[in-house]
Amino acid sequence: MTASPARAAVPSALRRARDAVTPATRDFLSRLDDTSAAIVAYHLGWTDAAGVPTRGGGGKAVRPALATLSAQAAGAPAQVGIPGAVAAELVHNFSLVHDDVMDGDTERRHRPTVWAVWGTTSAILTGDAMLALAQEVLLESPSPHRAAAARLLAEATRNLIRGQVLDVAFEQRHEVSLAECLDMVSGKTGALLRASAMIGAVLAGAPADVIDALSTFGAELGIAFQLVDDLLGIWGDPATTGKPVFSDLRSRKKSLPVTYVLSQGGLAARELASWFRTASPDRSSANGPSPEMSPRDGEARAADLIETAGGRQWAADEARRRIEAATQALHAVPMPAGPRAELIAIAHFIVEREA
Amino acid sequence: MTASPARAAVPSALRRARDAVTPATRDFLSRLDDTSAAIVAYHLGWTDAAGVPTRGGGGKAVRPALATLSAQAAGAPAQVGIPGAVAAELVHNFSLVHDDVMDGDTERRHRPTVWAVWGTTSAILTGDAMLALAQEVLLESPSPHRAAAARLLAEATRNLIRGQVLDVAFEQRHEVSLAECLDMVSGKTGALLRASAMIGAVLAGAPADVIDALSTFGAELGIAFQLVDDLLGIWGDPATTGKPVFSDLRSRKKSLPVTYVLSQGGLAARELASWFRTASPDRSSANGPSPEMSPRDGEARAADLIETAGGRQWAADEARRRIEAATQALHAVPMPAGPRAELIAIAHFIVEREA
Repeated sequence: MTASPARAAVPSALRRARDAVTPATRDFLSRLDDTSAAIVAYHLGWTDAAGVPTRGGGGKAVRPALATLSAQAAGAPAQVGIPGAVAAELVHNFSLVHDDVMDGDTERRHRPTVWAVWGTTSAILTGDAMLALAQEVLLESPSPHRAAAARLLAEATRNLIRGQVLDVAFEQRHEVSLAECLDMVSGKTGALLRASAMIGAVLAGAPADVIDALSTFGAELGIAFQLVDDLLGIWGDPATTGKPVFSDLRSRKKSLPVTYVLSQGGLAARELASWFRTASPDRSSANGPSPEMSPRDGEARAADLIETAGGRQWAADEARRRIEAATQALHAVPMPAGPRAELIAIAHFIVEREA
Repeated sequence: MTASPARAAVPSALRRARDAVTPATRDFLSRLDDTSAAIVAYHLGWTDAAGVPTRGGGGKAVRPALATLSAQAAGAPAQVGIPGAVAAELVHNFSLVHDDVMDGDTERRHRPTVWAVWGTTSAILTGDAMLALAQEVLLESPSPHRAAAARLLAEATRNLIRGQVLDVAFEQRHEVSLAECLDMVSGKTGALLRASAMIGAVLAGAPADVIDALSTFGAELGIAFQLVDDLLGIWGDPATTGKPVFSDLRSRKKSLPVTYVLSQGGLAARELASWFRTASPDRSSANGPSPEMSPRDGEARAADLIETAGGRQWAADEARRRIEAATQALHAVPMPAGPRAELIAIAHFIVEREA
């Protein structure tokens, strides 16, 4: 998506975090009833819907990697951050399972979503169970700072939900300012990434300036993450992202590049605004295509408008600026060099990823 | 429903707890986005759906009363239990809002449910927000035992959800043993009442024997609560309960009195089992009534069968036995006399209530 033509190398911290977090997560899941535990194992990609173990699976483990590196950034062993890693991943997946119910999405990571397999009731209950379990994981950590870590995660969860509430509200509105959109993103995507980047240091009892630096790092990373998500949602390669071409335009998502262009005014903004107002999401053809333009042509035209008006460039530049600010925050405080370099590698991976 | 002909007097502890918990809850709700805060205020009965303040409202405040009395039982001021009271009430209401979505119930306490007014997405998000906020409330308590209290509540939440998962699973099964049904109830209804009865004492740093006694008290109270709920669900006066006559039979709920009769075997059990198998819940008339019997006649016949086979008497006796065990647990440990008497008064109120 950016200057680098080759696919970004996956930082080894992500693999290490995945390996460390999986057995700990498995242990905690055994506390759930069999049905909920099986549903979570499926959702995490450990099994198929019949419960048969599968290879690989799961997401990119960004949050677990941040949580364990955050403990190491505070001079503690990665182990100290594991409860934070498990808990953050549970909260992340709680939100994915509930999101899929609310959005009616039937596929995630090329597999049927939980509600599509087990129904809405099981999806709601399984999400609820993951959220409750996340708090248990933290509160059973041996760290004397477990209450502060649990409070951080609960606050992040509330802000994540607040972001989702705003996201839903914005869908009903024609005008959303760039500031409002950034505020929504800082909740929906930023809150949990920020908490993940802090939680290991909190569990390790790090000094306030280190925790503050990790907070800035995580918050900036969160915005950068969403900017790249939004770029991939418009210009991502379907073969790599697994999503249809112009995916976010097809669903008429007022993502950050779109909101940027709309906020700039001018001819392109007016044409784009008019297209967003008149074309119905996802069902353009059913609702009668314009005589001149097929739905796909309309999406291609919208993508061109966003690019011509500078939305694509702005989002890519802004993502790099955010990563720069994140990096600077880490350099401003004393921190072991290894974990700092690995945190920065994750930040770069996030803006260079292609899926 | 029992020997007392007059309606049971509402213990003053319930009113005191409601008065103490409302302002604290209001303070914490101000952290939510405006939409979620307004939805919670409506759900709690503080406002109508347009946000206009209403008089009274809310439930019986049993959990807040248990939480504050539990602090007093440990010799601490009621104030120490307030974060536990607010948090328990938030978890209780999280589960009600999500339950109404899952059950498709359009009315609660004679008012439209949250999802019926604001839609499923808002109901899921509002429930999620209440659950996250409950943990924040506890973790910001000044008590040095806040982490233990938060862990207790998270565990209770997980067990509550487990009870709901079992409840859903049992609806799909023809045979559920009495032991299985009691296990489900100890999660769905018992877990949070037990945690409420313990949480004030935990926040107060009470000795283990006092906490254990309150745990037994709350767990037994939970089963008694559900037994009375189940009796009211069949024989409650619609004018008092606000539910239709034979409400639980109409929805074919395999409640405790029903499960007791089915587990006893014999003619009545066989006729009852056959009625539960063949009659469709809620839609008997739409699915074609039996030529001999209207749906209402069928429900009356089922109620008679349960009563004749001893299900009604068993449930009433069992509720009293549970309250007796709960009371004995409190008498077995040292505790100030006032809070003990008030806890016991709540227990009696619960079995004597008519709604």
